[in-house]
Amino acid sequence: MWALRAAPARLRARPGPSGRRAASSSSRPAAAARALVYAQHGEPLKVVELKNLELKPLGRSDIRLKILAAPVNPADINMIQGTYAILPKLPAVGGNEGVGQVLEVGSAVTTVKPGDWVIPADAGLGTWQTEAVISEEVLVGVPSDIPLLCAATLGVNPCTAYRMLLDFEKLQPGDSIIQNAANSGVGQAVIQIAAALGLRTINVVRDRPDLQKLVDRLKGLGAEHVFTEEEMRKPEMKDFFKNFPRPRLALNCVGGKSSTELIRHLGHSGTMVTYGGMAKQPVTASVSSFIFKDIKLRGFWMSQWKKDRSPVQFKEMILSLCDFIRQGQLTAPVCSEVPLQDYQVALEASMKPFVSSKQILIM
Amino acid sequence: MWALRAAPARLRARPGPSGRRAASSSSRPAAAARALVYAQHGEPLKVVELKNLELKPLGRSDIRLKILAAPVNPADINMIQGTYAILPKLPAVGGNEGVGQVLEVGSAVTTVKPGDWVIPADAGLGTWQTEAVISEEVLVGVPSDIPLLCAATLGVNPCTAYRMLLDFEKLQPGDSIIQNAANSGVGQAVIQIAAALGLRTINVVRDRPDLQKLVDRLKGLGAEHVFTEEEMRKPEMKDFFKNFPRPRLALNCVGGKSSTELIRHLGHSGTMVTYGGMAKQPVTASVSSFIFKDIKLRGFWMSQWKKDRSPVQFKEMILSLCDFIRQGQLTAPVCSEVPLQDYQVALEASMKPFVSSKQILIM
Repeated sequence: MWALRAAPARLRARPGPSGRRAASSSSRPAAAARALVYAQHGEPLKVVELKNLELKPLGRSDIRLKILAAPVNPADINMIQGTYAILPKLPAVGGNEGVGQVLEVGSAVTTVKPGDWVIPADAGLGTWQTEAVISEEVLVGVPSDIPLLCAATLGVNPCTAYRMLLDFEKLQPGDSIIQNAANSGVGQAVIQIAAALGLRTINVVRDRPDLQKLVDRLKGLGAEHVFTEEEMRKPEMKDFFKNFPRPRLALNCVGGKSSTELIRHLGHSGTMVTYGGMAKQPVTASVSSFIFKDIKLRGFWMSQWKKDRSPVQFKEMILSLCDFIRQGQLTAPVCSEVPLQDYQVALEASMKPFVSSKQILIM
Repeated sequence: MWALRAAPARLRARPGPSGRRAASSSSRPAAAARALVYAQHGEPLKVVELKNLELKPLGRSDIRLKILAAPVNPADINMIQGTYAILPKLPAVGGNEGVGQVLEVGSAVTTVKPGDWVIPADAGLGTWQTEAVISEEVLVGVPSDIPLLCAATLGVNPCTAYRMLLDFEKLQPGDSIIQNAANSGVGQAVIQIAAALGLRTINVVRDRPDLQKLVDRLKGLGAEHVFTEEEMRKPEMKDFFKNFPRPRLALNCVGGKSSTELIRHLGHSGTMVTYGGMAKQPVTASVSSFIFKDIKLRGFWMSQWKKDRSPVQFKEMILSLCDFIRQGQLTAPVCSEVPLQDYQVALEASMKPFVSSKQILIM
């Protein structure tokens, strides 16, 4: 968290535009930012508040940046609710992803200069604020010739999709993969990166009123097949696999029955990677699927990957993803741009089921 | 199956000692064997019969051998019951493991000579017979300076234990592993090989009337800790792990709740390998254990390993295991030697719960 890494003073509330208290007493007037802060865990609409924050002075290794755009991701919501695996010290600024523009750098900063774009190198930085002072080591530069919304949504979902497609099975063009929650941010990135790599995709979504519209949109992104959870359970699927290669990789963001179906359709010696649990139910697999079908069940967490790897490896991945973006193979998810002050609209929309549009806070 | 690989004629019943039919009409009297045959799947005590079988003539690449000893393993029982993943064509000779002595070799046989000991290179050979004619390619020589019962039980359980300890996690001396069904044939081999490799073991068994006797016996084999399934679920286990390294590897032969406990105690990024499902219940793991604890769930099947590897690799493993045996680090499981004609005693005992003694048919 940008907030978490600082002394609590950084979260000291400053008087807002209508405030009557005097400004900070430091010799040089401290820069101020507006930020979405929560002082306790709970329902986001109740606990998140827009506040004025004082920025810490720029240190030798610090970067002062203007945040340009930051999405509202499911993990952000779970962190506020207090149900996520890692939780910030409170009070905290919400948001883990986003893109900022460098305004000023400390004397020891070497990797970026004013005007450059940067994204967080790690989860937990607190991106829902207009401006921030952050250590160079937790930021990574990104090319500024890609669309703003791509940059704002690059650091988590496309990275998760890319790593899961590359790190678990050695896939060749023509191999197939299967995923549930295919309409999620990660799911859409999986569809596009898989298509760019020549992989064939089976995409599972929940049934919904405007299903055909969703199917068309995912196919437009490069999805080869889109099925509902119900269709996946029908006996006809057996016929489908007579003419389609069994998936070597399954990507599971749901758990419960949905993951049971993925395992059932997975090919011999295939891997299922679990990266989310929307159904709030565990993953269950038969003993015989392990012994006789040799399935492999794994998990993936982008934050852990970033912790275990060097910034150089992260940067390499970002540049590969930017190549996909420049070639038109990877686009930002369908987004709704919401001005920061309308954050309640964004929070509410992000928690509704079947909302196919990612909420992006524009600062 | 030795029987399966031959023409059905090989299973043609010959008149028994009291039979009145004439012997085979071939120009040279065919050699005969007594064998435990089943013509249909069902309860082993009902469908298995001791019959006389005619042996096929010795071909250029064949070996005629006298079977010395062959165990009754759970997989043998499941095959007869028809519940195993691979099933022989019927009628079939029971048994998948055992040791034989070469009596005669075909002119093209190069790997063994009369007097040598051999074991099946693969599952499904049908070892419950006094004598057999088998292709050289499905047999592997074993040193005859190891105890007979070690040789008879070497090809499946110690191999399974050895591979699971070596192939899934790179374990170092001092690392710990956890296993359920610790008293099974594989379990006992795991205890001994792990101790020989300097690994620390947590061994889970079902509670039983003579528990202390079992605990003492497993500790005598090298088990560091032995707990019952019930003890594993107690909150005290948390204290235990304050002074004991979290296991990097779990070996699951049970499934259901027992495997849930193994996963719970597994260390970060650890692997659980499932090789059996005694509880007849699936393996269940929480989504968070995959994502945040990075657990890996795999399966192991010795038959598949043998299919995927060369005879040279199998032979290498056999020789490594024989070194453990010669150094007193690996012994045969507690065995009850049963003469072939008393096979019903052996079949019955092998299906009783809590029988700690492996039934070995002596031909």
